Amino acid sequence: MGRWEPNARGRLAKAALELYVERGYEQTTVAEIAKRAGLTERTFFRHFADKREVLFSGSDELREHLADAVAGAPDSMAPIDAVAAAFEKVGVLFEEGRERSLQRQSVIAANAELRERELIKLAWWSATLADTLRRRGVADPAASLAAEAGVAAFKVAFERWISGPAEPDLSQIVRESFDELKAVTAGR
Amino acid sequence: MGRWEPNARGRLAKAALELYVERGYEQTTVAEIAKRAGLTERTFFRHFADKREVLFSGSDELREHLADAVAGAPDSMAPIDAVAAAFEKVGVLFEEGRERSLQRQSVIAANAELRERELIKLAWWSATLADTLRRRGVADPAASLAAEAGVAAFKVAFERWISGPAEPDLSQIVRESFDELKAVTAGR
Repeated sequence: MGRWEPNARGRLAKAALELYVERGYEQTTVAEIAKRAGLTERTFFRHFADKREVLFSGSDELREHLADAVAGAPDSMAPIDAVAAAFEKVGVLFEEGRERSLQRQSVIAANAELRERELIKLAWWSATLADTLRRRGVADPAASLAAEAGVAAFKVAFERWISGPAEPDLSQIVRESFDELKAVTAGR
Repeated sequence: MGRWEPNARGRLAKAALELYVERGYEQTTVAEIAKRAGLTERTFFRHFADKREVLFSGSDELREHLADAVAGAPDSMAPIDAVAAAFEKVGVLFEEGRERSLQRQSVIAANAELRERELIKLAWWSATLADTLRRRGVADPAASLAAEAGVAAFKVAFERWISGPAEPDLSQIVRESFDELKAVTAGR
């Protein structure tokens, strides 16, 4: 490891997102990102495998938070409610960064490869949630369905959050989205 | 257009799937597919853009069937029930080809690029269903949630169908999967 740079990772991520929005994802090089952040390319590659990873590096951490939250839910909690509570908890982690989330989403929406990567991320979250539910003793297909439906409710909530007014906060919209999911699947 | 070949498309699709299973998707060339089918490469490219399209060419047609079924559902039908009925109807189209579906799925599971393409297909179905529901006057987020949850229920049903015994048929498993979705989201 080279010289320690204060918050190098955060500075690189911020610079990258700015450049992706200004010039487009495809047109931005790692050299430009490093320069904007006042760091070297070498430092960039100590933190990220490539320029795509800047947009997705947080998703594994979120996936672990989701799994931990579901694993730690009270035994008496229904699977869908454990999943809902996990997404509400994760929602809090986004709340300082609504503007950043909106920028990230606009970059992803503009690029087919990134849209695919985003779908893979969600599929991976769903698989992890289903696994975690199975370990709680939830049988299939209930485990898979609760996980898939839960990811769908979060996805819809997230899109509403970043495209709507700054209030209400994401956790509240997640809660509403799960309520709406329950109403919709009840045939209302 | 060249010489008419009886059922060239079906023969090419069958030959391609056989080869993908025998040798692996990546190792199979269009020349080999055409040869196995007793046709020319030129004929292959009259029917398919590339060897990947052989695996996904039916999905747009299915998407249209789904949209038509939802658009034609009785006005009184709840959104989720219109989506369920559409997937039951589409399920019938698969029933002659369970073995083929199983082979196709095993080829897709073995290749990251194909798995991504499959996720895109499902996202595309979901977007189409949500649009169709909106045109029936269903507001968001209910339209998006019914579509996403419906695709999830179908996905789970399809996996159960191809990995389980030949009976019961896909339509019945789809029906059960939607019932299970309703139970799961009701917190049971």
